[in-house]
Amino acid sequence: MVDLTELMENEVFMAYASYTTIILSKMMFMSIATAFYRLTRKVFANPEDCPGFGKGENAKKYLRTDDRVERVRRAHLNDLENIVPFLGIGLLYSLSGPDLSTAILHFRLFVGARIYHTIAYLTPLPQPNRALAFFVGYGVTFSMAYRLLKSQLYL
Amino acid sequence: MVDLTELMENEVFMAYASYTTIILSKMMFMSIATAFYRLTRKVFANPEDCPGFGKGENAKKYLRTDDRVERVRRAHLNDLENIVPFLGIGLLYSLSGPDLSTAILHFRLFVGARIYHTIAYLTPLPQPNRALAFFVGYGVTFSMAYRLLKSQLYL
Amino acid sequence: MVDLTELMENEVFMAYASYTTIILSKMMFMSIATAFYRLTRKVFANPEDCPGFGKGENAKKYLRTDDRVERVRRAHLNDLENIVPFLGIGLLYSLSGPDLSTAILHFRLFVGARIYHTIAYLTPLPQPNRALAFFVGYGVTFSMAYRLLKSQLYL
Repeated sequence: MVDLTELMENEVFMAYASYTTIILSKMMFMSIATAFYRLTRKVFANPEDCPGFGKGENAKKYLRTDDRVERVRRAHLNDLENIVPFLGIGLLYSLSGPDLSTAILHFRLFVGARIYHTIAYLTPLPQPNRALAFFVGYGVTFSMAYRLLKSQLYL
Repeated sequence: MVDLTELMENEVFMAYASYTTIILSKMMFMSIATAFYRLTRKVFANPEDCPGFGKGENAKKYLRTDDRVERVRRAHLNDLENIVPFLGIGLLYSLSGPDLSTAILHFRLFVGARIYHTIAYLTPLPQPNRALAFFVGYGVTFSMAYRLLKSQLYL
Repeated sequence: MVDLTELMENEVFMAYASYTTIILSKMMFMSIATAFYRLTRKVFANPEDCPGFGKGENAKKYLRTDDRVERVRRAHLNDLENIVPFLGIGLLYSLSGPDLSTAILHFRLFVGARIYHTIAYLTPLPQPNRALAFFVGYGVTFSMAYRLLKSQLYL
């Protein structure tokens, strides 16, 4: 069995691992937020989820949509759309030997921007709070992608 | 050219690779399930997908939603929301040198829970089958994230 | 600090990094396309996004759905559903020591198929353009998954 700990001794990779774990955990929290609003507001997407299901057709009145639930779901989907590119591009960027302080700046900005994006989406804060948070995260990922494609394109 | 096979000789990493490939293949199957229900129930989201499109406006009657199709799509989205964190956190966890049997237990529980989640969603089985499957998968990912953040936080 | 550049000297891995960065950047472009159509068509999902919000209730008339916006969003979600498996399976495939030309053929086909899928979805081109693009990308990912599971299953 090979000792892989050397990868985890690389500081850039350790920073990537830490920030990625934090932002993925934050994204997972969105599932809990959705479940919380579905349960407290009695808004469900599936008949089998409704309270009193099977005891009468009137359980189906809970099969509806709700502004609050839809808002959390949009925030969750936006997370997915932006964290997936960060996951892939950030991993490759971390392995491409960037400067440690530059890499950490990228990771901090991205994680901070995405957390602020969630706060701005769920509060909701007036625009352009959410838009700015979105574009900071987007710009960070794009900056890493640019460095990757510029330094080691192999097609 | 460097020999990378050493990474694939690491047993934890090989287990991660195998279970990840299985669960991503399962997730890809959801696309086929959606296409199957769309075709057999003639329920489409795009005008160009409707049978007889271009031969008359009445093809547009197939532009509708269907409970069964929406159920598969929700299961697919739930997979995405949960398998993406597993993909990232599981990779980093595998590289952090965990105990082999503990790691395999995590991977088995996650893959089993997500397969059961799909069965519970598509059958559908009465609750709390689906909720339990969801929380087992969620707990496994969170347990890996906790270990990562506890053992090697680098911010 | 360990020198990780050896991973980036592996040609298969470098090719994976390049194609992955390209296709993830393409996926990120879908967010811009969605924002473009939302702004030019004045179609919003959140009250705080509407022009003139706070200056009167009639801003809420922009809270609606639009065929064009929904089409871009479906294309984006389809990207997510297909690029996530490629991201995970492609990474593991790249590390499993495949033949360089075979690997590059896989990556090129996938990236080409997904770009064509977006063009076919947004134009829209008549079917089976989009369906073919989808199945080429799907087949490539499945072919990599098959190789992985066949050569080094560790359960």
